[in-house]
Amino acid sequence: MNYKIKSLLAIFLIVGNYCVAQSNDQIVEDFESSSVNQPGHVYPMVNSEGRVRTQVFAPDAKYVKLDIGGVKYDMVKDAEGMWTGESAPQDVGFHYYQLNIDGASVPDPGTLLYFGACRWGSGIEIPSDDQNIFAVKDVPHGHVHEILFPSESTKTCRTAFVYTPPGYENQTSKSYPVLYLQHGYCENETSWPAQGKANLIMDNLIAEGKAKPFIIVMTYGMTNDIEFGKLREFDIIPFQTVLVDELVSYVDENYRTLSNQENRAMAGLSMGSMETKAITTNRPDVFSHIGLFSGALYAPEEVKEQSNVKLIFQSCGSKERPEAVQKSTEALKEAGINAVWYVSEGTAHEFHTWRRSLHEFAQLLFK
Amino acid sequence: MNYKIKSLLAIFLIVGNYCVAQSNDQIVEDFESSSVNQPGHVYPMVNSEGRVRTQVFAPDAKYVKLDIGGVKYDMVKDAEGMWTGESAPQDVGFHYYQLNIDGASVPDPGTLLYFGACRWGSGIEIPSDDQNIFAVKDVPHGHVHEILFPSESTKTCRTAFVYTPPGYENQTSKSYPVLYLQHGYCENETSWPAQGKANLIMDNLIAEGKAKPFIIVMTYGMTNDIEFGKLREFDIIPFQTVLVDELVSYVDENYRTLSNQENRAMAGLSMGSMETKAITTNRPDVFSHIGLFSGALYAPEEVKEQSNVKLIFQSCGSKERPEAVQKSTEALKEAGINAVWYVSEGTAHEFHTWRRSLHEFAQLLFK
Repeated sequence: MNYKIKSLLAIFLIVGNYCVAQSNDQIVEDFESSSVNQPGHVYPMVNSEGRVRTQVFAPDAKYVKLDIGGVKYDMVKDAEGMWTGESAPQDVGFHYYQLNIDGASVPDPGTLLYFGACRWGSGIEIPSDDQNIFAVKDVPHGHVHEILFPSESTKTCRTAFVYTPPGYENQTSKSYPVLYLQHGYCENETSWPAQGKANLIMDNLIAEGKAKPFIIVMTYGMTNDIEFGKLREFDIIPFQTVLVDELVSYVDENYRTLSNQENRAMAGLSMGSMETKAITTNRPDVFSHIGLFSGALYAPEEVKEQSNVKLIFQSCGSKERPEAVQKSTEALKEAGINAVWYVSEGTAHEFHTWRRSLHEFAQLLFK
Repeated sequence: MNYKIKSLLAIFLIVGNYCVAQSNDQIVEDFESSSVNQPGHVYPMVNSEGRVRTQVFAPDAKYVKLDIGGVKYDMVKDAEGMWTGESAPQDVGFHYYQLNIDGASVPDPGTLLYFGACRWGSGIEIPSDDQNIFAVKDVPHGHVHEILFPSESTKTCRTAFVYTPPGYENQTSKSYPVLYLQHGYCENETSWPAQGKANLIMDNLIAEGKAKPFIIVMTYGMTNDIEFGKLREFDIIPFQTVLVDELVSYVDENYRTLSNQENRAMAGLSMGSMETKAITTNRPDVFSHIGLFSGALYAPEEVKEQSNVKLIFQSCGSKERPEAVQKSTEALKEAGINAVWYVSEGTAHEFHTWRRSLHEFAQLLFK
């Protein structure tokens, strides 16, 4: 049932450095539990406007705030010590957030935990019309392998996730192309398989016959080794060495890959797109299909020296810089390069933009 | 440097329902960051006594407590709003814990998150003399596959983790025995690969030639479908159907297994040991090697009807019921059954007991 109530009061509070406006907007009372809650937890909930409502028991707290999308929303305590509060409507898709209890920033104990914003913390899923692309359906499912690979250059044993498509384990005579897929700044190798839903997007595309089955490899782009705000000083060479000289070799030795440039792609989101552009520029012999999601863009003159580029895919959310993506891609096309642009409607620099980007990009790969 | 200071005051506080004694015990000031902290986090720390010291910034909180091992320890605020506090010495190994900020139980934002105690929450690792058994070493590493398998009986698509030993991916002519390994009550399928370190224990044993390479399958024992305190009413049949009739078939179809009773083992910890005993009793044709860690025990008369049991391994921590484990196992041996008991020194009903149990049990399997 979809009915409305008026919030009791229009309050305007200035708390600390944060200015929080709670207007008397009508809140649609059709909240349902978020799909990424911990087992058995009713809160947080999301309504059809995209508002997040959560609860936390903190009987002795002076204040509790819901901290999401760069805004802190005041929560209200009841007689038993339970705090409840709502955010303004959020964009569809996945968002990182946290609670603030008397000045302490902590995860909401109601949600599953995700690595983003440089921390393991709470996530919320705002339903979208196209969430079907990553739904768990009754189709054959691939596997996500957590692997530890040796890295001579860093003197460490490093983690990666390897998605193998349905049938990989028992069709032992078949070899597959490979996509190397990078997360963004302050995320890690878990981000694409967890909040990115990369495996489920692929399972569904393959079941519908829309994508060729391929392997996806996701590893840590060493983003935490640089300080906040020092992204411009980021040196690509250490990560390039790990990826191209160590991980590609490990994957080709341990998985049934088509181990040549024609069958190897690289893509990344945000900082991962910058890494993708830098590495595909430095090592044009390794990857033939390139995906840049919400970040770097290729100019025609930058592609010249690269041999055998089969595809450059560039994308972002409609709330980012869609004109720049379109313009840059049209220039590549005019220069005779097979280039495609995509804009995710109604989303910003967040994971729903990147899930959709992968969904589009995957359908163009290795064809 | 290993020096001691005296804590400033002996205080005895009664806060809420909790009675916390902070004596003037000397605290050894050799704290080091816990090995399971989030990247870049110094706190929580652990000292050589096994005390946990943590910090959280909560400038407006009335009180903050460190809640570990069933005891809440008061933390103390400094002038900047940073709270710091220590626990009493803890047993070696892994413990679940949380913070309490003005009555709100929340994870410590400093740590990685683990599923245990019915929630995703903080974990801490107290170094042990034998932590080497699960260290990440420069040896060949197996892979941990996250799989989704169809379950007709529950009308769901269910998650499991599958450990494949080093070399599995490219030695495609070899088939392997399989161990089905269950978590405890209020844990889930992530518990053995995450805090249990099952994959690393196996990698190291295999590298040392101490264990035969085998596959390990870890899935959810549906523990959250029963209420707290209603464990006696737990019906094994739904889980038995998922495990034996659905998951075993999926694994045998999708992995290169030796798919007979002789090459199939089942083990579990706590509630998982009760599941193991129930299922190996109900379906004696399926598993030949049985591991019961910290829970169920087999009596000779219960084994009689089972055919071809090759091994019954029973274990617990020295702070649990070691005499019962020894007595029960000696009775099995007297009845002519190949039975082995093991006691983990200095540990209770926690994961270090079970890591050590797996380490012992694995060396006896499929030989």
